[in-house]
Amino acid sequence: MKENRLEEFAPLFFPKTHVVIGASANPFKFGGRFLRTLINFGPKGKLLVVNPQETEIAGLDTYASVRDIPGPVDFASIVVPARAVPPIVEECLEKGIKGVQILSSGFSEAGEQSKQWEKQIAETASRGIRVIGPNCFGVYSPEGGLTILPGETLPKESGPVAFFSQSGGLAIRIPRRASGLGLRFSQVVSYGNASDINECDLLEYFYHDPKTRVVGCYLEGVRNGPRFFKLLKEVTRVKPVVIWKGGLTESGSRAVQSHTASLSGAISSWNSLFRQTGAVGVNSIDELLDAILAFTHLSPQSGRRVCVIGGGGAVGVAASDACERVGLTVPPFSPELHEKLKKIVPAAGGSARNPVDIGNPFPDTKALKTVLESVARSGEVDSLIVDGLELAVEKNRDPENSELVDTIGRDNVQAIMDLKKMPGSSLKSLMVVMPIEATGTDGIEAESARRRVRDKFLAEGIPVYMTLEGAVSSLSRLAGYGEHLER
Amino acid sequence: MKENRLEEFAPLFFPKTHVVIGASANPFKFGGRFLRTLINFGPKGKLLVVNPQETEIAGLDTYASVRDIPGPVDFASIVVPARAVPPIVEECLEKGIKGVQILSSGFSEAGEQSKQWEKQIAETASRGIRVIGPNCFGVYSPEGGLTILPGETLPKESGPVAFFSQSGGLAIRIPRRASGLGLRFSQVVSYGNASDINECDLLEYFYHDPKTRVVGCYLEGVRNGPRFFKLLKEVTRVKPVVIWKGGLTESGSRAVQSHTASLSGAISSWNSLFRQTGAVGVNSIDELLDAILAFTHLSPQSGRRVCVIGGGGAVGVAASDACERVGLTVPPFSPELHEKLKKIVPAAGGSARNPVDIGNPFPDTKALKTVLESVARSGEVDSLIVDGLELAVEKNRDPENSELVDTIGRDNVQAIMDLKKMPGSSLKSLMVVMPIEATGTDGIEAESARRRVRDKFLAEGIPVYMTLEGAVSSLSRLAGYGEHLER
Repeated sequence: MKENRLEEFAPLFFPKTHVVIGASANPFKFGGRFLRTLINFGPKGKLLVVNPQETEIAGLDTYASVRDIPGPVDFASIVVPARAVPPIVEECLEKGIKGVQILSSGFSEAGEQSKQWEKQIAETASRGIRVIGPNCFGVYSPEGGLTILPGETLPKESGPVAFFSQSGGLAIRIPRRASGLGLRFSQVVSYGNASDINECDLLEYFYHDPKTRVVGCYLEGVRNGPRFFKLLKEVTRVKPVVIWKGGLTESGSRAVQSHTASLSGAISSWNSLFRQTGAVGVNSIDELLDAILAFTHLSPQSGRRVCVIGGGGAVGVAASDACERVGLTVPPFSPELHEKLKKIVPAAGGSARNPVDIGNPFPDTKALKTVLESVARSGEVDSLIVDGLELAVEKNRDPENSELVDTIGRDNVQAIMDLKKMPGSSLKSLMVVMPIEATGTDGIEAESARRRVRDKFLAEGIPVYMTLEGAVSSLSRLAGYGEHLER
Repeated sequence: MKENRLEEFAPLFFPKTHVVIGASANPFKFGGRFLRTLINFGPKGKLLVVNPQETEIAGLDTYASVRDIPGPVDFASIVVPARAVPPIVEECLEKGIKGVQILSSGFSEAGEQSKQWEKQIAETASRGIRVIGPNCFGVYSPEGGLTILPGETLPKESGPVAFFSQSGGLAIRIPRRASGLGLRFSQVVSYGNASDINECDLLEYFYHDPKTRVVGCYLEGVRNGPRFFKLLKEVTRVKPVVIWKGGLTESGSRAVQSHTASLSGAISSWNSLFRQTGAVGVNSIDELLDAILAFTHLSPQSGRRVCVIGGGGAVGVAASDACERVGLTVPPFSPELHEKLKKIVPAAGGSARNPVDIGNPFPDTKALKTVLESVARSGEVDSLIVDGLELAVEKNRDPENSELVDTIGRDNVQAIMDLKKMPGSSLKSLMVVMPIEATGTDGIEAESARRRVRDKFLAEGIPVYMTLEGAVSSLSRLAGYGEHLER
């Protein structure tokens, strides 16, 4: 079963010969843009073109029809108008092509008449060819040399995250945003109307795919509820599945009707699905990315006892409120740990309790290190969140003083990174919050510095969040999944 | 009463002669950094220094004590250690100084012993001098030439927003972040332990201040509950008050104890305060800024019927869900409006219903303009949110095609801006959502472009949000305040 599923999808994700049917030399046409994007991204196998009007497009072998291609082809992208698609899928089957993606729209989402074409496609698919789409953006598979429009500049390296989406727009926005957060994908699949391949097939593939560790998806509806439920229960035993279910409100459900014509389902049944399967529910693009970031870097055995270390009292108050709202605790320290920290943290303008207020957004590195290490060794908390420290200071902020301040930032970053590998630490997770403080057009240098420091943390497997709320919500989701695994 | 209050605070916010007591020539000392920051920001009145060890600091007239200053002084900043503060405040009173800010910490927040000093200060204050602090960052007042450390680069222009904060850290973070969002302040006041001037005094001042239109604050506790409640009820009749109350959970309340030793209060009593007074409650720095942005630009008569226009189906689904979750509605269009839009919006890959999916993140400007204007004239919705359009396209994203794409972005921005002043529009508010899609270090050019386009919208009074959730939550808060005003 497992081998079959992986083998079945190989032509779709790692094609040896890929033909684009309906590609054009005109970059203003969809087929032209798509072809150029593929070429610029860098195909891994052989790339061919079918276009009856032209004899050579972009220097590639060009044929009038699929039938005219001499050698074997395993994958086709179809970008012709909807009404022309059904006979082309039939031709692809005859040619022995194993998989196609239909990027054209104008099928069941466009009305009764066009539903017929989609039925024909499904019927052809049932006779031995797998179909992604129609009305989709298709596949981004860095290892297979496939990308989504406009994903020319998406990373060429693979990674442990899989994402599939009923929305094409999200299938490009998610990997684009995620790439800046250091996340890399095995595959991203926009599967549109799911005439053949649907959320269950994809979930099953990524379940078996050894390269995928974290699965994310955006769903508007599910075709086969019982199968999805059963499968989800199995998958979450071995890898986390983060689900953004769109259309869980009345207006949202109406919007789903216009978008993908899916049956949206009641919020109560989805809530019980999350509870029973251990799948992780999120409600926005930011929550989705924040959760995937946590699941990629941290263990689900993260626990709920949090220590927050910040450089300012309000940071601690805000963090405590935010933790409690999502079901995490900020437990008081033991008298021993409190006494120990009191020797380091300034009595005026600081706090040696949990949350720790180190009294200054640029703390002395030695003091910060001692606080971090004492908390990490104490066994009194599971997780540590660092917030409200200025870790990325642009040189010119404090002109007469820049050398000093810049060094403090750098050393403090190192102190936090060292904690991750510190022997004797009983911390299960470590997170850093680095919001954008310099929001102006004149703050772009500072934003650049912030991103560079963020990338240093990410490279060490320390997730960095833009908001405190994003960090604690993700930690709570992680802990909730951990608790599900234990049950 | 009104005139008195404004007159009483004039020396604190617009000092004619300002003496910094405890300033130093050493930029590594707090008093040295503070003085340099003030000088670089640009004082409006005369700036003097008191330091018994030195004869001249930073080219300013320097005295051994306040008593030695020949002419009148109306304002003092005190940066000496806690134990030395009480006699200095006494000296200031004798000198005829009308207001002081005490930036030093180590008072009631540091334990029993130091509480005594704070009591002495309060006693002195009762005899005719107003005191901000201690344990605070003091006043940022662009019109008065005052700034907070490290607020050297905060805007020098004034604006309609006032913010006061029990947290010093937030008193710098809020105006810094807000400045990039185009928000300008009358004053920002960090008032720390409130030995004299407290949240009620500040609320009353900003109530009367004709330059302040929107009041924001961060509170950990309130000294005089009944007075605050009564005052708040009056203020909200003429201007909105946005309150972030820290410590509304058990752990948060504990953190408040370590931070400002305030009595935090139960969540239930705060919730009823918000309900009864019409004050607007928020729970994070982002929510605070998002709400202030809405209240600055939009009328509270904004209503709850929203149209969302986006370039992708999932955007509309997400927007509908998000609206309904915060109590806004996305009403279906009338058959007439629907038919009208159907002629413009592509049937395949778009939706002429509400939410409108214009089918493409780079829509044709003429089509976009017609959709925007038809909705604005329809009277069927109160507010319009534009989300999911690519409005800031960096030139090199689509190399062969950059000229075209860049022009579409620019023209579409103009089309949205034109809507704001369009005759015949029945829209009460217009918002744009522009998230950061290019999150990587290599995306800094795109982020710069995003900020430039954002600033164009802001200059036209159109608030721009980083997240859809921020936009709809703020709109809901605005509508809620409008409903309170009508009751």
